[in-house]
Amino acid sequence: MGMIAVDWGTSSFRAYRLDDAGRVLEHRSAAAGLLACQGAFEPVLARQLEGWKEGTILMAGMVGSRNGWREVPYVAAPAGVDELAAGLCRIEAASLGGRRVFIAPGMSHQPPDGTPEVMRGEETQALGLLDQLAGTGPHTVCLPGTHSKWVTLQGGRVTGLRTAMTGELYALLRRHSLLAALMPPVDIGDGEDLAAFQRGVEAGKHDGGLLNHLFGVRTQGLFGTLEAAEASSYLSGLLIGHELRGLMPPGTEAVHLVGAAGLLSRYALALSLMGVQCLLHGETLTARGLFLLGKTLPPAG
Amino acid sequence: MGMIAVDWGTSSFRAYRLDDAGRVLEHRSAAAGLLACQGAFEPVLARQLEGWKEGTILMAGMVGSRNGWREVPYVAAPAGVDELAAGLCRIEAASLGGRRVFIAPGMSHQPPDGTPEVMRGEETQALGLLDQLAGTGPHTVCLPGTHSKWVTLQGGRVTGLRTAMTGELYALLRRHSLLAALMPPVDIGDGEDLAAFQRGVEAGKHDGGLLNHLFGVRTQGLFGTLEAAEASSYLSGLLIGHELRGLMPPGTEAVHLVGAAGLLSRYALALSLMGVQCLLHGETLTARGLFLLGKTLPPAG
Repeated sequence: MGMIAVDWGTSSFRAYRLDDAGRVLEHRSAAAGLLACQGAFEPVLARQLEGWKEGTILMAGMVGSRNGWREVPYVAAPAGVDELAAGLCRIEAASLGGRRVFIAPGMSHQPPDGTPEVMRGEETQALGLLDQLAGTGPHTVCLPGTHSKWVTLQGGRVTGLRTAMTGELYALLRRHSLLAALMPPVDIGDGEDLAAFQRGVEAGKHDGGLLNHLFGVRTQGLFGTLEAAEASSYLSGLLIGHELRGLMPPGTEAVHLVGAAGLLSRYALALSLMGVQCLLHGETLTARGLFLLGKTLPPAG
Repeated sequence: MGMIAVDWGTSSFRAYRLDDAGRVLEHRSAAAGLLACQGAFEPVLARQLEGWKEGTILMAGMVGSRNGWREVPYVAAPAGVDELAAGLCRIEAASLGGRRVFIAPGMSHQPPDGTPEVMRGEETQALGLLDQLAGTGPHTVCLPGTHSKWVTLQGGRVTGLRTAMTGELYALLRRHSLLAALMPPVDIGDGEDLAAFQRGVEAGKHDGGLLNHLFGVRTQGLFGTLEAAEASSYLSGLLIGHELRGLMPPGTEAVHLVGAAGLLSRYALALSLMGVQCLLHGETLTARGLFLLGKTLPPAG
């Protein structure tokens, strides 16, 4: 009789009531992320799900991290539905009645060169996406954010993972760097200047590296060739351009973008400048991924 | 009868009393940088130079910037002693008696590709260094700092300039990023862990780019392969490694390092890991550079 899928991150809580075929019957969201819960996970969950009666609850995201409800070990890539399902961690939650509550594991990956990679939540979105894609792949998936994730899907499994700290670095530079003094105050909000964004993406092509290119925000401000109102969009383009050039596999023809519309549109523009196709997908893929994991469980008894 | 050379930056003030041959007779330094002066440049200068009687005072550094005593226009590279001397800006300073006071110009450069570059103070150090180097070059010079400068010297002039925001980005990440939570509090001070620094330099070799490599600080902390006490040195190595790979001209066999001993030793170690020779030079090159500019002036009368 259906199930409940919960996407529980650091700053937001989203729940989906699903029918037997995984269709979303109802959707709730709240500013009840980990930071707001202060450790009181069970009462927050009970309150958010009030009135929903499904017997099985599956959760993904930072709720399974060291600072979450229960730390659930990472499952190592390559991994698909079976491996992630085997890593589901059952939680006791007396106040939720006799219902079954699980947290999905995150995923780790050790690239052949370089340092280890991890994700929590995005692996479940990747499962949901896998379910929609034809062919064995490889498919290249980008999930932009504070820490953008680049996921490779092949043969029904997640086979690769890389992270870029793009969103975090943007926020740091926008608020605390000497470049911030060249921009309007943060609380006014950043306008979207697409031409400046595009110039930033293109600037990242030159040699010198990111540490050098960032200084160009300052000098162009100094010489009056970059207006204060343009600078944040230029900076965003510079960082996203570096992310794409650093993490998009060579020869990529198309990228699947997963996330919220505003940020995706910037990535889509940067990809189009590089002659790469993109396909947009919404954040409800988490519900689909959790549904696929839930189907592997024995019927609730 | 000699002259006085002043290196006046954002956070520090240094003065040198020089004899007719440019030798340093006396040296003074004070925490009397631009930020501490609050616009009262002339009284600060008079106080710092008390008892020194030389009739000519030449100054370099941010004192000539928009937020300094007087904004002195940049001189465009390629430029050497003659071009910089032509850009000297005379200042009226009644309280200093009948003495001549000049501020040296900064230097700008427009690389064939990429955004414009500027420096203030480092061009004078470069002049001082030129005076010591044999042959026409090219010589590659690195002046590490909040904004590291990479200068090319050839045929007695500065012919190239690139900047890397390495020091600023380190400070931002060390204080305000999610990575900071993995390190001891900033006020304890960062120990120098050379092995961790070296690992950071090497990690920058892999593909993925800086935005990706930074995340390795977090995951290695998570998996226990990078201790809290090692993380800041690793981060420093990662950033300096990226700076070197981005800005050192291909085929460079030796780099002249100019600056304070502590930071130079890190750059020297990173260069040695890349098989590049380095030659260290102290910060008093500013005095030498200003002396060369002063020699172009007519005798004080």
